[in-house]
Amino acid sequence: MKLQIFDSTLRDGAQGANISFSVDDKLKVIETLDKLGVDFIEAGNPFSNPAEMQFFQRIAGLKLEHAKIVAFGSTRRKGISAEEDHNLQSLLAAGTEYVAIFGKSHIRHVTDVIKATPEENLAMIESSVRYLTSQGKKVIFDAEHFFDGYKTDEAYAFKSLQAAHDAGAYCLSLCDTNGGIFPDEAYAITKKVTETFPDLIVAIHSHNDGGLAVANSIEAVKAGAKQIQGTFLGFGERCGNANLSTIICNLQLKRGYECIPAEHLKDIYESAMTIAETANTAVPANQPYIGMNAFAHKAGMHADGVLKYSSSFEHIDPETIGNKRKFLLSEISGKSAIYDKLKKYFPALDKNGKEMGEIVAALKERALQGYQYEAAEASFILLVEKLLGKYKNSFDLINYKIINEQPAIEGKVASAIIKVRVNGVTKIAASDGEGPVHAMDLALRSALSDFYPEIAQVTLTDFKVRVLDSDKATAAKVRVLITSANSSDSWTTVGVSEDIIEASWRALTDSIDYALMRSKR
Amino acid sequence: MKLQIFDSTLRDGAQGANISFSVDDKLKVIETLDKLGVDFIEAGNPFSNPAEMQFFQRIAGLKLEHAKIVAFGSTRRKGISAEEDHNLQSLLAAGTEYVAIFGKSHIRHVTDVIKATPEENLAMIESSVRYLTSQGKKVIFDAEHFFDGYKTDEAYAFKSLQAAHDAGAYCLSLCDTNGGIFPDEAYAITKKVTETFPDLIVAIHSHNDGGLAVANSIEAVKAGAKQIQGTFLGFGERCGNANLSTIICNLQLKRGYECIPAEHLKDIYESAMTIAETANTAVPANQPYIGMNAFAHKAGMHADGVLKYSSSFEHIDPETIGNKRKFLLSEISGKSAIYDKLKKYFPALDKNGKEMGEIVAALKERALQGYQYEAAEASFILLVEKLLGKYKNSFDLINYKIINEQPAIEGKVASAIIKVRVNGVTKIAASDGEGPVHAMDLALRSALSDFYPEIAQVTLTDFKVRVLDSDKATAAKVRVLITSANSSDSWTTVGVSEDIIEASWRALTDSIDYALMRSKR
Repeated sequence: MKLQIFDSTLRDGAQGANISFSVDDKLKVIETLDKLGVDFIEAGNPFSNPAEMQFFQRIAGLKLEHAKIVAFGSTRRKGISAEEDHNLQSLLAAGTEYVAIFGKSHIRHVTDVIKATPEENLAMIESSVRYLTSQGKKVIFDAEHFFDGYKTDEAYAFKSLQAAHDAGAYCLSLCDTNGGIFPDEAYAITKKVTETFPDLIVAIHSHNDGGLAVANSIEAVKAGAKQIQGTFLGFGERCGNANLSTIICNLQLKRGYECIPAEHLKDIYESAMTIAETANTAVPANQPYIGMNAFAHKAGMHADGVLKYSSSFEHIDPETIGNKRKFLLSEISGKSAIYDKLKKYFPALDKNGKEMGEIVAALKERALQGYQYEAAEASFILLVEKLLGKYKNSFDLINYKIINEQPAIEGKVASAIIKVRVNGVTKIAASDGEGPVHAMDLALRSALSDFYPEIAQVTLTDFKVRVLDSDKATAAKVRVLITSANSSDSWTTVGVSEDIIEASWRALTDSIDYALMRSKR
Repeated sequence: MKLQIFDSTLRDGAQGANISFSVDDKLKVIETLDKLGVDFIEAGNPFSNPAEMQFFQRIAGLKLEHAKIVAFGSTRRKGISAEEDHNLQSLLAAGTEYVAIFGKSHIRHVTDVIKATPEENLAMIESSVRYLTSQGKKVIFDAEHFFDGYKTDEAYAFKSLQAAHDAGAYCLSLCDTNGGIFPDEAYAITKKVTETFPDLIVAIHSHNDGGLAVANSIEAVKAGAKQIQGTFLGFGERCGNANLSTIICNLQLKRGYECIPAEHLKDIYESAMTIAETANTAVPANQPYIGMNAFAHKAGMHADGVLKYSSSFEHIDPETIGNKRKFLLSEISGKSAIYDKLKKYFPALDKNGKEMGEIVAALKERALQGYQYEAAEASFILLVEKLLGKYKNSFDLINYKIINEQPAIEGKVASAIIKVRVNGVTKIAASDGEGPVHAMDLALRSALSDFYPEIAQVTLTDFKVRVLDSDKATAAKVRVLITSANSSDSWTTVGVSEDIIEASWRALTDSIDYALMRSKR
């Protein structure tokens, strides 16, 4: 049976501590989720600030393969009509086919928080849904605090759903807003709702405050919910939202539901890595299904058991979702996945040839050093070019010196001197800059510009830094990701070093190498 | 109703990647769990190596208030008698009243992994339990792969339990060894066991590979299990074991079971911090109940709701378990949330006074510059000290110069020279380092060490970098977060600049200022 997957990484997920997305980040998340086959992507609240509204206007023209974009807002305020409510107007202006609005289902929140009468609140729900529906929107009604509301005043909680239902809502979303319910409650209460409203899609929206969001979502589905709301990696305020990557794997692999198209199951792991990198965070190593250690076996009894009978210590085959079994002494890599990625760049590559073996070995070696190529395909292509003997470097570095000083000199704190050799010709150039990487970037471009005028078209659009072994504090290894673009394309490169300047240098030179390699084609 | 809590942090937990305990660490964990009122502490496998055996001998004399120490091993090997089995002899020599032994319950594991006949395996279970019992031990029988075994061959799985039962076992522990079952299966299968063996204690032992270990444990308890096995912080191989801190809070606060003595509930948070620190790991910020952000509120609307009606976004009162409500400081925080955060540091502050107005304005101004204080409370406290005129700087920077160069000099790519003035005395110091921030960190500590010997106690434990306006590429502003710790505390500071070195400098000096300010108190 098909279930709808509703991802709120960009809305509820962005409420998580330390989670924030730039416009480019948001586009990357949307692209990733859409390719995976997620049904709904809640992209933000267009009323919250002008930037969010601009974002909706920008993505209005996006051609998505599968997903529908959802704009999020609330029911109208009390005391005004739906037409007068700026928040509802913003939802219309966002230009999405689907909108989600939250309203109160818990009598105490009606009387104590928004200080409305029970009837006023029902009218707010009814008129808001009706107005949006009349304007051609499909409305998902988020019944805030529904489960706690049900436990406090069952009849009133149902009235709030009835109001949304009667006004033409497309979906009733049952929210466990403070994340405190138990699986048996999720089942019993959702069942009453699905039996009362058999004509509507019922959604479950769980938070993980009791460590039960995945279980609660599963039980609600058993009780007839047809849509699961959550965030792909469990991002969200406090303890996070229901983790969709876990739920999709559980329900699709073990209970036979179709959450995403079956052919995309194998992309779950990589999608998770891409979203995590985009959010500048790491997937916890022990995360179910997608964690680095989710299928890791310590040498000895367990590893032996796995080799004799693989379900011994593995509840699923990790390759199903694109993850890998891992023995802590000898890593096993997915040659097929790597070949899959390379064949479009290197059509002559033989999947079972010696060169593929060397590529897999190099990838393992680099992974040990801290390189990760999931989000840095350009650096990976360059690495393979080098292994295949196809790489021709654009320049030789003779030396560089990067200086940072305080007090600043004429407002500039950083300067760089770079000497390179291209085709036997030596060139030295210098620049100051806003910071060391900026100074280095400008000096390198200046040194290369006579030889390669086309690099003037390349701009650096993103720069991310992750500390790898944080117990070493400021002596830790860092991984730098740089995203570059020209008028037609964008690409990401990676550098790793204990020295942030050197890591940046590696990512920067890969970026320029890749640009020059492509311009030659 | 009383439930038994069985903690395996020192045995199954130590299988987790990067988890290892020294003898002192183990004693600290035992002491912490015992004080909290946990019933059983599985302390290791005395047969696995001589150090483990010595550890059991060492703790034999420990006076514990509440907990029983358990030694872990396996049923005898096939083809020998129980008396001849060295592993069972080790269990006797460990000198504990309780022992846990695992045996096979899954027919395929009997035939394919240990390559015994079904009858041989039952005899191994029966004779091992009987022998240990005859020697005065109380035996917990860990039925490995019980749930999967039940699904493969129900009758045989039950025969394995029957063998242990008939030989005098104290407890039958149902293991979901590969962590793949669902809550409804945990309930239904456990129920059959508790109905079949009403005279014995039945335990649930879950792993978290499906993100369901907490839910499965809860459902098993509903089905009559009286003992819950897990690890206090969820440590364990792959995705970890059932997280006991979550389960205890869920069952005791919401279902009325007694897992630990009621008067110790308020110690859960601190016990978790102690165990995490002992294991040299951090409790994930979003961990249910005990995470740093488990009761953190960000959105203005949510924070407002919590203040009006605390169960709005809190499923329990965080103080019950010793955790605290927290408002994340972002540009959307209202005055109430900010005041709530400050009042413990600045008890004289007037919520409606002029100074609070200035603080709110300064926070907004700094937010525009890219500062975020959500995760950097120490920098926020320093900012408020400055605004209130209470701040006294620890040193004046005269100048610094940070140099990065390639080729490296004696393997070092970065060096730093820093000149400071403290109480009229000037000091210059230099250092090289793995990178510019490392060199700067070392040089600054060196310059300040004569004046403030206490900074030798402060270590930097984390370093994060985020690019703020990525469209400006390498000229973009970056935000640096540095987490520092001494033996009793940890704090995070923030710096923002277009120059990553300057941003790091600001976070670093805040970190040292904060440490010195606290040491003066």
